Amino acid sequence: MCSLPVPREPLRRVAVTGGTHGNEMSGVHLVRHWLQAPGELRRPSFAAMPVLANPAAAATCRRYVGCDLNRAFTSSFLSAKASPDDPYEVTRARELDQLLGPKASGGAFDLVLDLHNTTANVGTCLIAETAHQVFVMHLCCHLQLQTPELPCRVLLYRWQGEESYNVGSVAKNSLGLELGPQPQGVLRADVFARMRALVASTLDFVELFNQGAAFPAFEMEAYRNLGGVDFPRTADGDLAGTVHPRLQDRDFEPLQPGAPIFQLFSGEDVCYEGESTVYPIFINEAAYYEKGVAFIRTEKFTFSVPALPALAPTPTLVP
Amino acid sequence: MCSLPVPREPLRRVAVTGGTHGNEMSGVHLVRHWLQAPGELRRPSFAAMPVLANPAAAATCRRYVGCDLNRAFTSSFLSAKASPDDPYEVTRARELDQLLGPKASGGAFDLVLDLHNTTANVGTCLIAETAHQVFVMHLCCHLQLQTPELPCRVLLYRWQGEESYNVGSVAKNSLGLELGPQPQGVLRADVFARMRALVASTLDFVELFNQGAAFPAFEMEAYRNLGGVDFPRTADGDLAGTVHPRLQDRDFEPLQPGAPIFQLFSGEDVCYEGESTVYPIFINEAAYYEKGVAFIRTEKFTFSVPALPALAPTPTLVP
Repeated sequence: MCSLPVPREPLRRVAVTGGTHGNEMSGVHLVRHWLQAPGELRRPSFAAMPVLANPAAAATCRRYVGCDLNRAFTSSFLSAKASPDDPYEVTRARELDQLLGPKASGGAFDLVLDLHNTTANVGTCLIAETAHQVFVMHLCCHLQLQTPELPCRVLLYRWQGEESYNVGSVAKNSLGLELGPQPQGVLRADVFARMRALVASTLDFVELFNQGAAFPAFEMEAYRNLGGVDFPRTADGDLAGTVHPRLQDRDFEPLQPGAPIFQLFSGEDVCYEGESTVYPIFINEAAYYEKGVAFIRTEKFTFSVPALPALAPTPTLVP
Repeated sequence: MCSLPVPREPLRRVAVTGGTHGNEMSGVHLVRHWLQAPGELRRPSFAAMPVLANPAAAATCRRYVGCDLNRAFTSSFLSAKASPDDPYEVTRARELDQLLGPKASGGAFDLVLDLHNTTANVGTCLIAETAHQVFVMHLCCHLQLQTPELPCRVLLYRWQGEESYNVGSVAKNSLGLELGPQPQGVLRADVFARMRALVASTLDFVELFNQGAAFPAFEMEAYRNLGGVDFPRTADGDLAGTVHPRLQDRDFEPLQPGAPIFQLFSGEDVCYEGESTVYPIFINEAAYYEKGVAFIRTEKFTFSVPALPALAPTPTLVP
């Protein structure tokens, strides 16, 4: 497996973005708190910057105002000429690209950590683009080791050849933290504390790396996006049923061909017609109804992550 | 306790309203289904009418478009001269008052059943205005008897002397079904099925009454609204903490003075300073953040409900 280059310098430009979706409350309120009390994001070698990614959406407690910010970081949006007709989020994506990028440039931030919630029962899910990001895979491994009693799964969301489009993609390295279940617009103390601990562990890992730690190669288990499955619908596009009780809340559990996935309002079951076992995630996520996604199928696989070498010692100036 | 008059005639004009809040999905989708397949709402002596109460809000999956429809049925809104500046929901309240009322008139519907969801862990909650509504209290008792294994609590929401303001208040009798927990914008099959069964049992009870059944007096336990408690907030009005993990999901359980109710982001607990035990409900309901309500305090009490006499037999015409 080809790997992307690992950092050769300490990571000093780190951002934590919350409220990319304005009704995912853990990130919104963590970032608002850190903007008042930034000390929690400091480590000896760097200070992470809290960023409220979509302030207009957060102010009205909606996912977005004009369009989904976390799909707006494509080169076509970022490079197009600004127009007064641009949706708010397209303008905001360009601002964030200036602040945290520019995307794919040497001046981009070293790491962006983006905070999300879902109504689905995913527990703790770490969302990375691809398995090739060695530094990010080591960060995931570190986070998994912090809470061995809780499952902490890694999802690789980007399809081969597809352009990256989310807020983290403007930085050199990025990871999304996706915690659930939590309703939109609700701030649960347990989920808030779990996210806060994950951010602290991330900053600790960066500090370890910056201080010269090396990390050995390992085997990583992860889930790969195979695409969404829509709800059953009427000819008019209305829902004709919803997620089956036997699938609801079973994110990351194996789904066998023939197992029920939907219950129609008329009473019948709809069964899964795939040919092999998949691992559904984002089951019954509120924000995905409008995207035509009742759940996302994934496959589980294992791959090798090469060692993350220690940074070369900083040359000491001869007095 | 004074009682309101009981029906002297069969209840033939019955409506089931869903989507009064457009992101409470059980009611939205039950009503959409029944509009296509109304047979489920028919009984020998009547056919209940399904009504999508707030179609504009349901279309965009929001609680409301302009203002909360379920607070818009006051005489000042209903009787004011229509203006192009009226919020959508004020106009819609007048339409529903014409359809199901007019409020406090002899021509009003006999019964409105209004379907709601909450993100709070209330289980099945039956919301009535006051204990004086004898017919509605008997309906609540009937619903409680259908599922003795599940708690099914009765909440009396209206303060003494306060004007009624919700959609059901335009009818002669009304009951709200409040089922949770369910995130806004999510349709859970288990909650959907529970609500559907409650509506069927309601229609069965009306049919029993219409067919001449009498119902004996009984003692009812209920919860009475004592008012809301806001989140801890910063000087700017932002949240400074959220519901304590020891209170979260404990709707209808006793809260003792001195018990923790909030956890501040700074780490400290805030304890309940009331003088007596209360029963919090709507704990961490998403829609109440903007109303400044983290939970509603209630007190539990018991009262006597008089018998519901059988309808007088319809006079037979002498041939």
